[in-house]
Amino acid sequence: MSDIVKPERPGGFLDFLPADCLARERMLRTIEKVFRSFGFDPIETPAIEFYKTLAGEGGDVGKQIFHVGCNKQEEDDALALRFDQTVPFARLLAANPFDPKKRTGIRLPWRRMVVGPVFRGERPQSGRYRQFCQFDADIAGTESMLADAEIIAMMYRTMKALGIERFLIRINNRKILNGLGELVGISDGLELSSVDITKELMRILDKLDKIGLDRVLQELGKEPCDRFDPAPHLSSDGINKIKEYLAISGNNSAKLDQCHKVFSGIKVAKEGLEELRQITGYLAAMEIPEDHVQIDLSIARGLDYYTGPVMETILLDAPHIGSVFSGGRYNSLVSRFTGQELPAVGASIGVDRLFTALDHLKAIDRSRQTVTEVMILQLVPHREGDYLAMANQLRDLGLNTEVCLLDDTTFKGQFNFAISRGVNFVIICGSDEFEKQSVQIKNLKTRIQTEVSRQGLAEYFGQSNR
Amino acid sequence: MSDIVKPERPGGFLDFLPADCLARERMLRTIEKVFRSFGFDPIETPAIEFYKTLAGEGGDVGKQIFHVGCNKQEEDDALALRFDQTVPFARLLAANPFDPKKRTGIRLPWRRMVVGPVFRGERPQSGRYRQFCQFDADIAGTESMLADAEIIAMMYRTMKALGIERFLIRINNRKILNGLGELVGISDGLELSSVDITKELMRILDKLDKIGLDRVLQELGKEPCDRFDPAPHLSSDGINKIKEYLAISGNNSAKLDQCHKVFSGIKVAKEGLEELRQITGYLAAMEIPEDHVQIDLSIARGLDYYTGPVMETILLDAPHIGSVFSGGRYNSLVSRFTGQELPAVGASIGVDRLFTALDHLKAIDRSRQTVTEVMILQLVPHREGDYLAMANQLRDLGLNTEVCLLDDTTFKGQFNFAISRGVNFVIICGSDEFEKQSVQIKNLKTRIQTEVSRQGLAEYFGQSNR
Repeated sequence: MSDIVKPERPGGFLDFLPADCLARERMLRTIEKVFRSFGFDPIETPAIEFYKTLAGEGGDVGKQIFHVGCNKQEEDDALALRFDQTVPFARLLAANPFDPKKRTGIRLPWRRMVVGPVFRGERPQSGRYRQFCQFDADIAGTESMLADAEIIAMMYRTMKALGIERFLIRINNRKILNGLGELVGISDGLELSSVDITKELMRILDKLDKIGLDRVLQELGKEPCDRFDPAPHLSSDGINKIKEYLAISGNNSAKLDQCHKVFSGIKVAKEGLEELRQITGYLAAMEIPEDHVQIDLSIARGLDYYTGPVMETILLDAPHIGSVFSGGRYNSLVSRFTGQELPAVGASIGVDRLFTALDHLKAIDRSRQTVTEVMILQLVPHREGDYLAMANQLRDLGLNTEVCLLDDTTFKGQFNFAISRGVNFVIICGSDEFEKQSVQIKNLKTRIQTEVSRQGLAEYFGQSNR
Repeated sequence: MSDIVKPERPGGFLDFLPADCLARERMLRTIEKVFRSFGFDPIETPAIEFYKTLAGEGGDVGKQIFHVGCNKQEEDDALALRFDQTVPFARLLAANPFDPKKRTGIRLPWRRMVVGPVFRGERPQSGRYRQFCQFDADIAGTESMLADAEIIAMMYRTMKALGIERFLIRINNRKILNGLGELVGISDGLELSSVDITKELMRILDKLDKIGLDRVLQELGKEPCDRFDPAPHLSSDGINKIKEYLAISGNNSAKLDQCHKVFSGIKVAKEGLEELRQITGYLAAMEIPEDHVQIDLSIARGLDYYTGPVMETILLDAPHIGSVFSGGRYNSLVSRFTGQELPAVGASIGVDRLFTALDHLKAIDRSRQTVTEVMILQLVPHREGDYLAMANQLRDLGLNTEVCLLDDTTFKGQFNFAISRGVNFVIICGSDEFEKQSVQIKNLKTRIQTEVSRQGLAEYFGQSNR
């Protein structure tokens, strides 16, 4: 006998027992139903991709990629676990171009959804998940802001369908953020390129919720320690511009108007504003209320691949857990594989994060502990065949049925086991009933016990009793 | 711009596009429905476990474990991808013992099902899957053969529910195979222990289908090259016993009778025979026909952890692809973690292997290419808001609806796109219809076009048209 191995689960990974699994399944089916109502077709890609497919995308996430290997593998075939569903989607799009002659490949525009685990090589002690479920919906092949509006409408309808009322979808546009460099005057002695300054500004603005406006403005003006320090070192004029930008407020249309003035003459930002104007117009046509979808000029979203509108979803009663449903437009991701741009937009719901958040808010219903509806007690020895036959009869009627397999064959032991399992009905068939060819059905909710003939089972469960 | 990365998928991993995904989904839901009808509750465990949890179990599989790592990981926390769902199940059982006072943990006996990907570090060129989906159902906490019979009944009902008629579930018992060593007289000068001889005999018998009886018997008599060669070197008497064993034929009850004679006096084999006798009795009580479940004394199943009955399922029209639904009893697996035995039995359906097999047999229906039922053509410029509002109206009616996002806004282009997507209905709303506040609904199956008012959409789809 070998040594005993501790039955440990690595940190950051989750087990789901039936009550959780059933609650999570209801959540997944609700999401699926809404996504499908928008015409998103299901696909599946593997959890493992070539490392080179995943590397270099997703910014910070790059450092968190889990490598995968086995002793049957060649060195140059480095494999890794996907960290999101978007990069594999781009790989799939690039690998399956539509051929109009053969009519093979993926015909664009295309709406697809995908659900499955993604993996992040986080430090286990940080309390973050290292495997979590993402449910994504994306539209590829169109630059139309209709697609972005459809994604946001889908986010809105999904949150509503999940029974969540207190949520806010915040939208912004990377093009506006890309205009910030020009706004603050990147030419004033900075070592950084326009791309780098935008990244650095976004990184600092992203801390607004955490450290407040004053410290954000302070950081923006900080002098770099050396030429490799990315500190933006903005002039007081630049800092004032950012202050003005962050002070923009009001409803969506007021924000757009003020923003137009701030970015006067900056083309890329103007483009971004026009896109947001179109999106908010479409959302109004769909009667999606503004108290659920608001322009928020401070949000950036972490991933490098976004190029246009970005969106995130905050639970108003648990804002600290961050966004539970996020996305954006990424028009350049596929070009990594093909050299050609392919416009796409999508959003991803963090199923496990949302589940945990709703759990904290006591909004997870764990009352259903089992799929079993009927338990057949096993009371008379050597009658196993009869109990099994009865079980199959009930299964034929569409009832989830188990024969009690408890070693304790007393009525009390078996009956208590059935109660602890959370079933709705108990079938009791002792010697008396065998003699009479009948069974007792106990409805555990109503506590009513009914005696029927073996043939009468179908009639009983066919009626309103179920 | 960085270099272009080839959009390759590593060998042995699969993508599923919508038509495949929808067909696979129907298969998974059918399996789920049957499993639940037996009262198996869903759970989920992570794809990644500690390497030590997985290592040393599953025999050959051990060499195929995928290691997982990232730079944020400590050396002694080696992680790996699960190669099956059974070892993680044993870990879960060991980690959650029932506490009768606190009423926490897993109460036994317990029926659980689980579906998800498992990973094998096969050589990519061998054409085998390195990630595949397994759907498992297991009963833990009882030694009763009723549980084994329930598992086999579930296998039978699952195959039937999947619409497969030509299949055979073959059952055997490891205890009978463990009696083979004694049968052939392991004491006659062999270097190997009783466990090793059983393994070696099983390995050779497993080749029966491939190399035939004569060569199997030849291998059984082979002299070892050196003391490390596991060649069993059976005496001619031993070989005759094996020949007699393999010649056992007839229906299940005839096989059991003959087997009793062959193993006369060998206790462990007698136990195994008694278990099979009970199981076949229970199956008869459930009216499961013998042409679908047969005792086959040559099957062993690869995994080391089986201790009692084992079963596998062959498609009679594609026997070469091997078993699509296999399992067995494993009473000692949990003791690796707790030091105490915990009886369990279960079976696992290889979803991808079965899907591929049915595909070869032309039994996969790919006619459904999309979830979208209705496509709204986008014909009049600047009417996007109206089309979106119409889409939401249809979604409220429960119809999966998409607004056509094709760049080509001609009627012909959009209509052909709708046909190529495989939708059932097309909504046509041009300038005329906008003026009349009406829409045209074209049913693509019946080719009937109906004009209704915007308010009439609900009535149209509420009726039998759908």
